[in-house]
Amino acid sequence: MNKKIPETLYWENGTLFLLNQNELPNKIVYKKCKVYTDVIDAVKNKVIAGASAVAVAVAYGVVLAGIKCAKFPPITKTNFIKKACDDLSKVWNISIYPKKAIEKMMVIVDMAVKLNPENFIKKLEETAKEIYDQDIEANVAMAEFATRLLKKESTIITHANSGSFSSAGVGTAIGTIKTAFKNGKVKKVLVDETRPYFQGSKLTAYELQQEKIPYMIMADSMSAFIMKTEKIDAIIVGAEKIALNGDVANNIGTYALSIFAKYHKVPFYVIANTSVIDFATTYGVKIKVADLASEDVLKVGGKNISVKEAVSRNPELDVTPASNITMIITEKGVFKPNKISTLKKKK
Amino acid sequence: MNKKIPETLYWENGTLFLLNQNELPNKIVYKKCKVYTDVIDAVKNKVIAGASAVAVAVAYGVVLAGIKCAKFPPITKTNFIKKACDDLSKVWNISIYPKKAIEKMMVIVDMAVKLNPENFIKKLEETAKEIYDQDIEANVAMAEFATRLLKKESTIITHANSGSFSSAGVGTAIGTIKTAFKNGKVKKVLVDETRPYFQGSKLTAYELQQEKIPYMIMADSMSAFIMKTEKIDAIIVGAEKIALNGDVANNIGTYALSIFAKYHKVPFYVIANTSVIDFATTYGVKIKVADLASEDVLKVGGKNISVKEAVSRNPELDVTPASNITMIITEKGVFKPNKISTLKKKK
Repeated sequence: MNKKIPETLYWENGTLFLLNQNELPNKIVYKKCKVYTDVIDAVKNKVIAGASAVAVAVAYGVVLAGIKCAKFPPITKTNFIKKACDDLSKVWNISIYPKKAIEKMMVIVDMAVKLNPENFIKKLEETAKEIYDQDIEANVAMAEFATRLLKKESTIITHANSGSFSSAGVGTAIGTIKTAFKNGKVKKVLVDETRPYFQGSKLTAYELQQEKIPYMIMADSMSAFIMKTEKIDAIIVGAEKIALNGDVANNIGTYALSIFAKYHKVPFYVIANTSVIDFATTYGVKIKVADLASEDVLKVGGKNISVKEAVSRNPELDVTPASNITMIITEKGVFKPNKISTLKKKK
Repeated sequence: MNKKIPETLYWENGTLFLLNQNELPNKIVYKKCKVYTDVIDAVKNKVIAGASAVAVAVAYGVVLAGIKCAKFPPITKTNFIKKACDDLSKVWNISIYPKKAIEKMMVIVDMAVKLNPENFIKKLEETAKEIYDQDIEANVAMAEFATRLLKKESTIITHANSGSFSSAGVGTAIGTIKTAFKNGKVKKVLVDETRPYFQGSKLTAYELQQEKIPYMIMADSMSAFIMKTEKIDAIIVGAEKIALNGDVANNIGTYALSIFAKYHKVPFYVIANTSVIDFATTYGVKIKVADLASEDVLKVGGKNISVKEAVSRNPELDVTPASNITMIITEKGVFKPNKISTLKKKK
């Protein structure tokens, strides 16, 4: 792996280490997870975020649960690890990818009583590692597909963070930008700061800085005017969830950016692992979006920006309609959004 | 005037007091201006901002210069005050309104040698007070025109701060919201926080809070998704400059909001004093937009958000094309943007 970018997560001697995204870009600090509930706490506290990263983390959470219960009597063991799987699968409801990862782990869990403790743990570890490796391989593949779509020396706008830290490594949207840059397809990246959590300023900028890819940060609302006054060649974003019809849920502000792109006729590309496609969700409007804490909009660095009585809206995600998306690029190829449903048959 | 809202500026015993917007909403602090260069410094340091507020402030700047030079020998006096007028007219280049205010003051300045010192100062004071009063009267008038356009119990989105503090008092967009609220036309206001300077969170929220008008703050990029998922009845914003063809320059993010409005078919109203119309600027594309300090995007409350090497874009304004604007409401009535040029003939 690329040494310039710290690993999002790694497994060592029965412990899962998660890069604490809350401390970036200032400090590289890992949270040690020794029991599966540590992983749940870490996701809840946004130590780690993003569909792919969380999927791999919860898979290792099952390994931690397996280690804990490996020597329990059969029924206790099964109950314990099934509860762990259930708890872990609920921790990042935004995306279906973590649930799919847990389903893969369940294949081993279902063999719990048949395997001796050592083999049980070994099989769990192997499967988690497989999920980890597949995530990275998928990111490499989609980056190559997406790179082909870009013109030489493109100026690109990206939103939120769909980089290394939101996956096992490499990243989806930022993975594409890195591959495209190596191939002379990226001249400059304009990074939406991504209010209210500043994932653009904190994570994406950090990764581009480490990779020495020219970039500038901007406030989210500036993208519109910059698309009007500068030549922007493409918008590249990630996805937390994709509905059957090709609608895409992603960090708040993605929808806004898609409207700017449509208005200015700039191609809008979504780069995502097929594991985020939720075939059971027919349309984007069926994706429930909750508001996160009001104070997250009203405070920066612990300090109030507004009057003390103020209350804010803070929807976690928004939904970009398929009609605003030029192409969805996955590890299985490039799809018009309304053709993403064809992947259902292939499965 | 409304006692709930502190005065933007006032004149007392030969001193101009400017409400320091940098300290809002936490503290009500006035900067005392005793010489005209104090006014220039105040505008440069964003103690006061907004076309109307600056126009009135620079008019009083001329009074300060007049007091200083009233007893100078004729030529020295004329040179001094003309230089003051020249300096003051350049301090807020975004808008033409301050220049128009200085032009009115120049009528008295041109009589400098004919008037005795007392009368000279008195005439300057009277003219500045006239500019002050006319700004407020205009705001009251446009608020009434605009209120008629609104439906009962509207939910409104506003951007930046076009309230009391960006004018002599009352405000343009917020003036309208206040009048409309009193007439049962406003149920709720959604306030864009307005990055990077948070004028929405700091100033607009403060004013709405004081007026007990229900509001919620949101990050700028959220407006799009909220327009999609909630019933929004109108967008109301102010203007720093209006071109002959009806294009409108205003705080960055206004253009973005106009695109959301168009996409979601929500009426987009610009509330502005006719003094911001620059008939010499034929089209919005001719309005030059400079970037403000990069660090203003990268730091909040003095603390770095991003990596230390990061650089940002920070255009001060953006330009909303007439085609995205439903109506421009002025103290002289309601105009389709492409009809704003008819005001030129009336002058």
